[in-house]
Amino acid sequence: MQIAMVLYDRFTALDIIGPYEALSRLPDAQVDFVAETAGPVRADTGFLAITADKALADVPRPDILVVPGGPGTFAEIENETLLEWLRTADTTSTWTTSVCSGSLLLAAAGLLDGRRATSHWLTLDFLQQYGAEPTGERVVPDGKYITAAGVSSGIDMGLTLVGKIAGDEHAQAVQLLTEYDPQPPYDAGSPQKAPAHLVEEFRANSRFSLV
Amino acid sequence: MQIAMVLYDRFTALDIIGPYEALSRLPDAQVDFVAETAGPVRADTGFLAITADKALADVPRPDILVVPGGPGTFAEIENETLLEWLRTADTTSTWTTSVCSGSLLLAAAGLLDGRRATSHWLTLDFLQQYGAEPTGERVVPDGKYITAAGVSSGIDMGLTLVGKIAGDEHAQAVQLLTEYDPQPPYDAGSPQKAPAHLVEEFRANSRFSLV
Repeated sequence: MQIAMVLYDRFTALDIIGPYEALSRLPDAQVDFVAETAGPVRADTGFLAITADKALADVPRPDILVVPGGPGTFAEIENETLLEWLRTADTTSTWTTSVCSGSLLLAAAGLLDGRRATSHWLTLDFLQQYGAEPTGERVVPDGKYITAAGVSSGIDMGLTLVGKIAGDEHAQAVQLLTEYDPQPPYDAGSPQKAPAHLVEEFRANSRFSLV
Repeated sequence: MQIAMVLYDRFTALDIIGPYEALSRLPDAQVDFVAETAGPVRADTGFLAITADKALADVPRPDILVVPGGPGTFAEIENETLLEWLRTADTTSTWTTSVCSGSLLLAAAGLLDGRRATSHWLTLDFLQQYGAEPTGERVVPDGKYITAAGVSSGIDMGLTLVGKIAGDEHAQAVQLLTEYDPQPPYDAGSPQKAPAHLVEEFRANSRFSLV
C-alpha cells in the first residue's frame, strides 16, 4: 500500500507528521514523502526541512494521498503541476485526504465539488469558493475523501483511517504505541473553546500568520 | 531563545515534531535541529528524513534541549559524544526536556539522578536503572527538567513549556492555532485504557518494535 505524503514550501510539519505516524504503521505500508522536486522541503517556520525522497512524477498512482496545510497553501493553489498531479493521482487512489488548509488544494483541484469537507478554522470559509461544503467537524469523511481540521487534527484523521483500512484493533494498537492519550494543559483548541479575544486577534491576523 | 531539537538515527518523528510545533511559536524562538553530524537523519520507519541543519558541536549552549525517543535510543545510550554534549549543554540550559524513550538518554547522561521522570510506557522501567524515579504521568516537570511519556505526549509537554515560558495566554494561542482539540476515535492511548491483550502483545514485543 503506497502512501504519498505531499510536501511543498512552507507546509506545517505537524499536519503531515500526525497522519504519517499513524499511517506508516499500517500493514504493508510504503510511505513516500513527495514534492514537485525531490530534496529537502522547508516548513513554515523556516526552522525545519523534511526530505522529499521522490518527485511527484515518480509517484503517479499512490493508494493514499495526504495533503498538509500551512501558509504555503495559497501559493500552491496557483501551482498547476501540483493540482494536476492531485487530479491524476486521485483517479486511482483509494483514499484522498488532507489536513488543515490542505483541503483548499484538494478543492482547488476540483476534487471536493459538492462534498462535505473541513479545514483549519481560519480557512474554512475558503472551501466554499471552490465548491465544497464546509463543516466545522474535526475529521470529515465523504466517500473516499477525508479532510481534517487544523494541524493536530491529522492525528485523529490518521487513526480514523487506520481503523477503516486495518480494523479497530490495529488502530487501537497504533494509538497505544503512540501513547495518544491527550491531556492538553489548556482547553483552548477550537474557536468555540478559546478566549474570544484570541479568536478575534487571529481573525484580524495580528498575532501569527500561519495560515 | 535557542531551542535545540536533537535528532539521531531511528528517532520517532512525532516525538520531536510535537514539541517543535509548540516551542517554535515562542516569542524570539530560534529552533535548530541538530545531530552528531549535520545532514538528513532518518526516522524509525525508514520512510522519513529530517534535516539536521547543524552539528551538535555547532550548538553548545542552547536555552532549551528537546530529546526525542524511538527505537534508536538504545544505540545512542552508548554514544558518548551525544551523552557528553547533553551533559555540557545542560550546564547552561534553562530547560532540559525529553519525549518518549528520550528520557533514557537524559538519564544515561546522569541528568535525572534522583529526579521524577517519565518515558514511553514500554521503557518506563529502564529509567530506574539510570537513577531516575519513574512515574506514569504524561508530563513530568522536576525543576528545569521536563520529561514526557510516549510519542504524542510531546505536544502536551510543548504546550506546558510554552505556558511556563510565555504565559498561559500565549500557550492558549498556540493551542488554538494548532487546533489542538483532540478527539481520538478510540480510547486506547495508555496501557490502563487499551485492551489488555494489546498491552501484553507489546510487552512480549510481538507486534511492533518501535521502542
